[in-house]
Amino acid sequence: MRAKLKNFIERSWFQNIILALVIVNSLSLGIQTFSLPADIARVMSVLDTACLAVFVVEIVLKLIAYGWRFFTDGWNIFDFLVVGVALIPNMGVFAALRIIRVLRVLRSLRALRLVSRLEKLRIIVQAILDSLPSIAWTGFLLAIIFYIFAVVGTMMFGKEFPDWFGNLWKSLYTLFQVMTMESWSMGIARPVIAAFGWAWAYFVPFILISAFVVMNVVVGVVVNTIGEVTEKSRAEVQLRKQGAPQLHEELEKLQEQLKTVQLLLDQQAKAAEKKVE
Amino acid sequence: MRAKLKNFIERSWFQNIILALVIVNSLSLGIQTFSLPADIARVMSVLDTACLAVFVVEIVLKLIAYGWRFFTDGWNIFDFLVVGVALIPNMGVFAALRIIRVLRVLRSLRALRLVSRLEKLRIIVQAILDSLPSIAWTGFLLAIIFYIFAVVGTMMFGKEFPDWFGNLWKSLYTLFQVMTMESWSMGIARPVIAAFGWAWAYFVPFILISAFVVMNVVVGVVVNTIGEVTEKSRAEVQLRKQGAPQLHEELEKLQEQLKTVQLLLDQQAKAAEKKVE
Amino acid sequence: MRAKLKNFIERSWFQNIILALVIVNSLSLGIQTFSLPADIARVMSVLDTACLAVFVVEIVLKLIAYGWRFFTDGWNIFDFLVVGVALIPNMGVFAALRIIRVLRVLRSLRALRLVSRLEKLRIIVQAILDSLPSIAWTGFLLAIIFYIFAVVGTMMFGKEFPDWFGNLWKSLYTLFQVMTMESWSMGIARPVIAAFGWAWAYFVPFILISAFVVMNVVVGVVVNTIGEVTEKSRAEVQLRKQGAPQLHEELEKLQEQLKTVQLLLDQQAKAAEKKVE
Amino acid sequence: MRAKLKNFIERSWFQNIILALVIVNSLSLGIQTFSLPADIARVMSVLDTACLAVFVVEIVLKLIAYGWRFFTDGWNIFDFLVVGVALIPNMGVFAALRIIRVLRVLRSLRALRLVSRLEKLRIIVQAILDSLPSIAWTGFLLAIIFYIFAVVGTMMFGKEFPDWFGNLWKSLYTLFQVMTMESWSMGIARPVIAAFGWAWAYFVPFILISAFVVMNVVVGVVVNTIGEVTEKSRAEVQLRKQGAPQLHEELEKLQEQLKTVQLLLDQQAKAAEKKVE
Repeated sequence: MRAKLKNFIERSWFQNIILALVIVNSLSLGIQTFSLPADIARVMSVLDTACLAVFVVEIVLKLIAYGWRFFTDGWNIFDFLVVGVALIPNMGVFAALRIIRVLRVLRSLRALRLVSRLEKLRIIVQAILDSLPSIAWTGFLLAIIFYIFAVVGTMMFGKEFPDWFGNLWKSLYTLFQVMTMESWSMGIARPVIAAFGWAWAYFVPFILISAFVVMNVVVGVVVNTIGEVTEKSRAEVQLRKQGAPQLHEELEKLQEQLKTVQLLLDQQAKAAEKKVE
Repeated sequence: MRAKLKNFIERSWFQNIILALVIVNSLSLGIQTFSLPADIARVMSVLDTACLAVFVVEIVLKLIAYGWRFFTDGWNIFDFLVVGVALIPNMGVFAALRIIRVLRVLRSLRALRLVSRLEKLRIIVQAILDSLPSIAWTGFLLAIIFYIFAVVGTMMFGKEFPDWFGNLWKSLYTLFQVMTMESWSMGIARPVIAAFGWAWAYFVPFILISAFVVMNVVVGVVVNTIGEVTEKSRAEVQLRKQGAPQLHEELEKLQEQLKTVQLLLDQQAKAAEKKVE
Repeated sequence: MRAKLKNFIERSWFQNIILALVIVNSLSLGIQTFSLPADIARVMSVLDTACLAVFVVEIVLKLIAYGWRFFTDGWNIFDFLVVGVALIPNMGVFAALRIIRVLRVLRSLRALRLVSRLEKLRIIVQAILDSLPSIAWTGFLLAIIFYIFAVVGTMMFGKEFPDWFGNLWKSLYTLFQVMTMESWSMGIARPVIAAFGWAWAYFVPFILISAFVVMNVVVGVVVNTIGEVTEKSRAEVQLRKQGAPQLHEELEKLQEQLKTVQLLLDQQAKAAEKKVE
Repeated sequence: MRAKLKNFIERSWFQNIILALVIVNSLSLGIQTFSLPADIARVMSVLDTACLAVFVVEIVLKLIAYGWRFFTDGWNIFDFLVVGVALIPNMGVFAALRIIRVLRVLRSLRALRLVSRLEKLRIIVQAILDSLPSIAWTGFLLAIIFYIFAVVGTMMFGKEFPDWFGNLWKSLYTLFQVMTMESWSMGIARPVIAAFGWAWAYFVPFILISAFVVMNVVVGVVVNTIGEVTEKSRAEVQLRKQGAPQLHEELEKLQEQLKTVQLLLDQQAKAAEKKVE
């Protein structure tokens, strides 16, 4: 029973239908952002619900087929959450609440199922996620730098510039803006320097330090990726060598010839012994 | 007949005349953007038409010489389209239409013929085009991210900020601007956050994600290019090795010496056998 | 006595308590930026002083345990300065002075002790500091370029644009802003060009030159890091080779076989000599 | 006579005095940008003229010592031009002309002599200049793209936005600004799109294309630099190999042993022949 279901789910035509529905649903989400005539809007809404229904059925089937092993694959959990979140606003429970707009928005996450459906995209996302741990500690260092500058900024400029440095969160956001170098000088630093003459010693070092740390992240990713790629190509070279090893062949021939030499010498030695006898 | 024409077209002085005309025509296009005295403007216009006539003749000659094989080379198709498009506004058919300004502009594309004429530029463009497929999937991932954020942005901020998030296209354009980090905070995000307090959770992750994906594209191109270059240099090393292979020589000498050894041993063995007999 | 103290300081539970206090103190610094009810503020202040007291005791213990060798480790000096600076505003001596706000701010540097406490962060910071010397000369070149452009800018635009080019420091700051490409054109260059038509020949080359030099710094860091990493991996390959050397094994086998051959031949030769005798 | 002069010029204490004067002169140029009291200004002016006099004498001495070979070294030509240009405004000929301010500014170029004086800086500048040819063709491609977009921009937006696209030069400058992504959207593209709805199809492709070409330049420089560095390190490995070649030693030992084998076999063969005789 379970094996049959598994077989059915893993068939390529079933997979393709789901993929097609994901694409259709993604497009319908985009179309719904335009102000549509009432009847088309209704069609879209029905299409939406239909797609969702199929996705729910698909996940239930998978849950039955794989049991709890379903949750051992990260992409399955991802699908489960995306569809589950999309389910909430349709349940009508939250209809009275103002939260509904936010929840409806989460439906758009369903378009992310394209990523979990297409092998190539999964590989890229996997590669990006795999590169995160190597960045984690540099990210933590950046977080500490942000934190210290935010504390200092809030204490120094908080009263005079409440919009930018009013509290720790505002300072952190402003520093993020400064790090992306967006309007950091004309928008933020020049007014602050006009009030606090020494403030350039706050902004310029922050930009230099954060740019340097970000550069280190980029360099780290470049070097890591090159390392992985050369590791792979080295392994391939190794394989090719084992497949058609010119040098090894030569050496093997040599060894065989030497064995022949030894055999002949042994024969000679025995013959000589016989003679002596 | 065809062979003669081919010969004529491929002569270097013919090629150089065409190249000179492309340069002259490109310059005349630039000069025409200034407001010129009537007689100079007329000269420029005549020059323009003359160049175009030569280009048309050149392509017709090529079409006769190469027949349908003309279209097997991408650069030929490129030349054909660029000259063809430039031909349209001179045909007078569209003169009455307002479209004429746009069509006249397309004449400037003729300056692109410089690229198809100069070997070095063709190689660079080819290299850039060759690197596109390796980027395609990451680009598609970026497109999905853009799409989801645009749908969410339109649904959430559309009513309050119609200029930036009024519909899907406007949201996509705004997100492109945010990705390039141009006025993303002072221009877009701060006003939006003033209306929707949680909107930082829309902009900051979008910037981080898109920056990360773009970084991945750059890293991919760097690693690919390094891979290709080292592949080439490895192939060259291989060639040099096959040209003057110290180790291989040594091994060959060894093998020859061993053959001599074997020969002598065989002779000895035979001599010994004879003696035994 | 000293050895005992050393032992005590280097115990992991002591280290972990200090680390925990550093984290607690860092968080309390952040919390104090918000306007707190009086009693919580007092608790925070006490917590702050308590942490500082522990840090002072820790450093005094270390000073006793290690003596003057304490100052041979850069991270110790760093800790000493950070705690020392934090001590100043609590001494009450400067209470009457306006400088107190600046000094209180320096307390936030205590959060930097997280870096000196966590091995991983120390390695990253060390790596960044190690890469600085290789950048030093390029940085000096950039400084000369900045200086010349600042002198020229001050002399040419100083009178007309006192806010941006009023003196050497203002020009240097403006050029830093231009280098980060923040509002360089709409904010600075376009107004200047409106007054001095040739000013584009000041800004555009400056951007190109500074971008090129910065690119060189980045390329230098990338290449250096790759160099170090490949150096390491090459050393590892060398080690692995020495551990399990396929080729060397083959050659050793060959050599052993040849020794056997030689031995047999020697025996034969001796036997032959005997016969001749 | 000439040899003595050469000897004198190349002495390190003479070189160091010139270097010191270059630094002093550079600093005095910076100090002169501030509004100084009359007497200090006069001292600075005298210092300036004195330094210039020494530089002129130095170059005249070099010209005498090296003759026309002086101009075979690029750095000498550089020094000659920088000092020569600085000489012009002091000649009083142009005093009546308004050009004097511009010419006085060129004096600041004398600070560039620091680059030609310090070996390390010369190497970096040389490296940057050496990397330019590899970029030249990509730069030419970028120039063509700029040219075409500038022609199109001038023709399409010239009338409506004369400040940004009024003529070819203005368009080129605006496109340079757009390429650096400074205020490209909020400042330039959004107003243009408000007038010409399709203008996004002008700006977005331009940004993508120019970003891609610039990325290619960066990638090219990275790959070239890595190539050069690995070439160097490969040459070093080659040298080390020739110094202590484990494998080669083994093979040589083998060959020697085989020669011994052959010698012994030859002896055996001769002994056998004697016997047969």
